[in-house]
Amino acid sequence: MGRVTVRRRVLRIRDGVPSYRPDTLAAEEPMEIRVGGRPLTVTMRTPGDDFGLAAGFLVSEGVVHTADDVAGIRYCAGATADNGNTYNVVDVVLAQGVAAPDASLERNFYTTSSCGLCGKASLDAVRTSAAWSVAEDPLSIGSEVLTTLPDQLRAAQRVFDSTGGLHAAGLFTADGELLCLREDVGRHNAVDKVIGHALRSGLLPLRGTVLMVSGRASFELVQKAVMAGIPMLAAVSAPSSLAVDLAAESGLTLVGFLRGTSMNVYSGSERLEPQPVG
Amino acid sequence: MGRVTVRRRVLRIRDGVPSYRPDTLAAEEPMEIRVGGRPLTVTMRTPGDDFGLAAGFLVSEGVVHTADDVAGIRYCAGATADNGNTYNVVDVVLAQGVAAPDASLERNFYTTSSCGLCGKASLDAVRTSAAWSVAEDPLSIGSEVLTTLPDQLRAAQRVFDSTGGLHAAGLFTADGELLCLREDVGRHNAVDKVIGHALRSGLLPLRGTVLMVSGRASFELVQKAVMAGIPMLAAVSAPSSLAVDLAAESGLTLVGFLRGTSMNVYSGSERLEPQPVG
Repeated sequence: MGRVTVRRRVLRIRDGVPSYRPDTLAAEEPMEIRVGGRPLTVTMRTPGDDFGLAAGFLVSEGVVHTADDVAGIRYCAGATADNGNTYNVVDVVLAQGVAAPDASLERNFYTTSSCGLCGKASLDAVRTSAAWSVAEDPLSIGSEVLTTLPDQLRAAQRVFDSTGGLHAAGLFTADGELLCLREDVGRHNAVDKVIGHALRSGLLPLRGTVLMVSGRASFELVQKAVMAGIPMLAAVSAPSSLAVDLAAESGLTLVGFLRGTSMNVYSGSERLEPQPVG
Repeated sequence: MGRVTVRRRVLRIRDGVPSYRPDTLAAEEPMEIRVGGRPLTVTMRTPGDDFGLAAGFLVSEGVVHTADDVAGIRYCAGATADNGNTYNVVDVVLAQGVAAPDASLERNFYTTSSCGLCGKASLDAVRTSAAWSVAEDPLSIGSEVLTTLPDQLRAAQRVFDSTGGLHAAGLFTADGELLCLREDVGRHNAVDKVIGHALRSGLLPLRGTVLMVSGRASFELVQKAVMAGIPMLAAVSAPSSLAVDLAAESGLTLVGFLRGTSMNVYSGSERLEPQPVG
């Protein structure tokens, strides 16, 4: 439980010369999320912040919106043959009146009966299931503040330097202050952990904040930001086409290739100061 | 259909100076995989090689093992309200006698009734569903050949330079010859496309080959290699703990941090020439 890294012996070859040495690996374990005892999904994740991960996943999927929607979260006991607990099955009990998710939740999120399966249907599904709108969020942030976020993210990653194998997601204020950092072998899990922590702290919707992620920005990450009420997503690397489409339709500011003193703004540039003219 | 990239206008800020310019994005669209008309899963993927992606996914999940197991693959027609085809729903018809996958396939792969949910159960599930063993594969490869693979992969990526947003998976011979390259916004999709292409070409199991991937090596990628009979997986970046565990248990050679003239070998170093002493 909570093993973020694992030590292993590794053969290092450099310029054809072999040597054996200990190496630190990012831990990866399966985790099953249940709702009211009913299995919902399995994700491969780095152990730690498991309750946050479960809560954040349910926010991302539109099942819960406030801390009060969750009556309790616990590890399921006796999951192994010898009645040991692997701490890999987490059960979320919803508050009375909160509808349990459909078993075919994943499919529902991407399809609608009227339109088959297309990018547009995926955008519509996010819009109809979001509890808040990020379009009217008055966040304004200096581009010079944004350029400090990647270094802050890396500096706060206690684990990254030792494994090179963990993604990070960090939540920042408009002044560039780090509110919450989470790491995981899966970028989507790191984001769910941040959002779940915010939900359980009573902070949703996350108005006026910026979510910064290592690596790329996919549709799924923009979806998670929108569902949590976060008005700006910044990524170190490239966004996908559907990520940009969803950001533009939702009124979310999407920044990519945030490196050094440069960045690309794909949507919602009105939140950047000084206001660019173009 | 087959739009690998999309052009968009983007605001570029460098040292605080804004400018607008066209940018090329990696395309991302949802794709539903059906088996015999029954929806199985939805994956967010880059369009192109959709039939290979569907076939490779079914290899990875242990549903099909040879080209003869697949009777046909087609796009479902009339998926949108106006009877247009989004080319985002692919139906695989299995050959007679091939068992359709369980609807709860994802869960089954990670859990067994005896052991609850743990890493060990995930390893066991791969072993019991694999059609071939990679442990006895006599592949032998020079470390100097391995060091040529990352550059070959990048050189073959027609799209990468323009978007910075696509993962790549390449299949190589022991002589370092590139057999097949596929790209996708999702690394797992790129691997499924490679494996699906091999299945449909009658090349499974892929004995004596090396699979090279951009980025990291997760449990899922090792699983896919094992299920396709590939004895060696090499990654540009770090593996996870469970990826190393599965590689060691399956007899797959796992190489990480393959950069320049250096690499880390996490399991199966007996396939490397010259044979390291340690």
